[in-house]
Amino acid sequence: MRTLEWEDNKLKLIDQTKLPDELTYVYCSTYQDVIRAIKDMIVRGAPAIGVSAAFGMALAQIAGEDMEKAASQMKNARPTAVNLMWAVDRVMESDDILKEALEMAHEDVSTNLAIGEYGAKLIDDGDTVLTHCNAGALACVDYGTALGVFRSAFSQGKDIQVICDETRPRGQGASLSVWEMQEEGIPVKLIPDVASGYLMSIGKIDKVVIGADRVAHDGIANKIGSFMVALAAKHFNIPFYVAAPFSTFDKEISIFDTVIEERDPNEVIYYGGVRICPKGTEVINPAFDIVPKELITGVITENGVIDLNNLEKEFKDLF
Amino acid sequence: MRTLEWEDNKLKLIDQTKLPDELTYVYCSTYQDVIRAIKDMIVRGAPAIGVSAAFGMALAQIAGEDMEKAASQMKNARPTAVNLMWAVDRVMESDDILKEALEMAHEDVSTNLAIGEYGAKLIDDGDTVLTHCNAGALACVDYGTALGVFRSAFSQGKDIQVICDETRPRGQGASLSVWEMQEEGIPVKLIPDVASGYLMSIGKIDKVVIGADRVAHDGIANKIGSFMVALAAKHFNIPFYVAAPFSTFDKEISIFDTVIEERDPNEVIYYGGVRICPKGTEVINPAFDIVPKELITGVITENGVIDLNNLEKEFKDLF
Repeated sequence: MRTLEWEDNKLKLIDQTKLPDELTYVYCSTYQDVIRAIKDMIVRGAPAIGVSAAFGMALAQIAGEDMEKAASQMKNARPTAVNLMWAVDRVMESDDILKEALEMAHEDVSTNLAIGEYGAKLIDDGDTVLTHCNAGALACVDYGTALGVFRSAFSQGKDIQVICDETRPRGQGASLSVWEMQEEGIPVKLIPDVASGYLMSIGKIDKVVIGADRVAHDGIANKIGSFMVALAAKHFNIPFYVAAPFSTFDKEISIFDTVIEERDPNEVIYYGGVRICPKGTEVINPAFDIVPKELITGVITENGVIDLNNLEKEFKDLF
Repeated sequence: MRTLEWEDNKLKLIDQTKLPDELTYVYCSTYQDVIRAIKDMIVRGAPAIGVSAAFGMALAQIAGEDMEKAASQMKNARPTAVNLMWAVDRVMESDDILKEALEMAHEDVSTNLAIGEYGAKLIDDGDTVLTHCNAGALACVDYGTALGVFRSAFSQGKDIQVICDETRPRGQGASLSVWEMQEEGIPVKLIPDVASGYLMSIGKIDKVVIGADRVAHDGIANKIGSFMVALAAKHFNIPFYVAAPFSTFDKEISIFDTVIEERDPNEVIYYGGVRICPKGTEVINPAFDIVPKELITGVITENGVIDLNNLEKEFKDLF
């Protein structure tokens, strides 16, 4: 499942706002098209946003745009996604941005395969695993981080069952993660976000694996709701893993300094075009929250599993 | 706002499945009509279910039905609601069930007003209070338990702000609680369920007040998601109150023995008639969860506030 591809000098994206009912594509031929696609969440998920932005910068370079302006606009498309900053900074150092973007797309796939390998070792035969939002192939170039771990465990013949949080307000768990697991033939069930604590309390969840939009020395930022899942997992002594490539790591900040994006109230007010509350309802709609390191069992990276609470020497210089 | 009323020998119910867009009524002229209304959640909320069931039994008595059979069917309409058992048992001891039901409706309103009085003392001027689901007038005959506390505090001139959890899967917070607060002129905002932990983490919630479907000596059962809210509140030292009349109390059981009703998967799969996940998605849809007493600051009753963790002598014989 290829989320994004360079085709005929355009960036071809799966339109994730149309899934799971329609598998259609959007073609971006300018960097502004890419910014729009990121803002409108046609493409979403930290790694996919990063690589899309790189291709967007390639489009800007090919068109002879003002590169500093393009870089600044691109970085503002979704301010919480650290991969976006990382990707734009990286390609800005290159003379041939297209070549660099293609290399990044290739790296993203190998990175995810490595994360899948390391993560699969943590999943036991018979496990029921919970995930929140979509850290799948659709969040990356291909394969996925959290869902890549499940793909890898399943492909090794482990008998696993995946439970997907719906992930209000945008429902990426219901529409994207369930769909990816079904396409793969991995047994999957959907729950309302509010139900994970109860399922943990009755012993129905063995492990949690989620993705991250940002990893710092003291925790991670990820889709709103991740914190409450992590807190419940801690309460019931259920391992809570974060699957994330090094490109998601931020050496500079404390995770608590992350600026939390507040999104359009209509994401909460309307669901599938239907208004769910009275007219004129005021809404608070933060897109992300913070999971402090105390609640995280380990971060699964392309080079192994990192315990943020007990950084081994080899990982010390990551932060 | 009168949720249920006896009118022309029928039980008149606000059709809560049509709110907030239409204020319409359903008339039940047989006890089977009442069972259907409870099952389909035309009427919902523990106290409202109890009083509706009492009127249902009155309809059965007036029609000369087999009362034992009617009682047993009525109790099965929603097995988690302890008020339903309580109400049916209470009216079965009466020769004039209609009189008893009318008395119960009257009692429910005075009980809620008393809960509101005691609860309002716990709410400070300037507080932002969170609630989950709808423990409002619509869950009772009138006024409400948790929302009754807010009504009472607001009517005393306290400057409060209410935040309502959406309450997936059925969205009672979004459709009912927001509407009740708007009708009352109380400032109210809607959030996705997943956002309450984040708002607590940034100091935006001062207190939580929810209702209960059942209160036992060791905790409460309430709408799915209550546990995760309570856990987050405990983590951030935010007072977590349960507003519930004595009719919700169950002396006989441990709260952990509560049978958790599993509801129709379509409640999760469809939202406002729109399918939110791929065709054929399997779902787990528990209707309630358990909040253990360790997470509860106090239970606001019609006779005062009870700390389950430290039962005073006057409340000892409640359990």
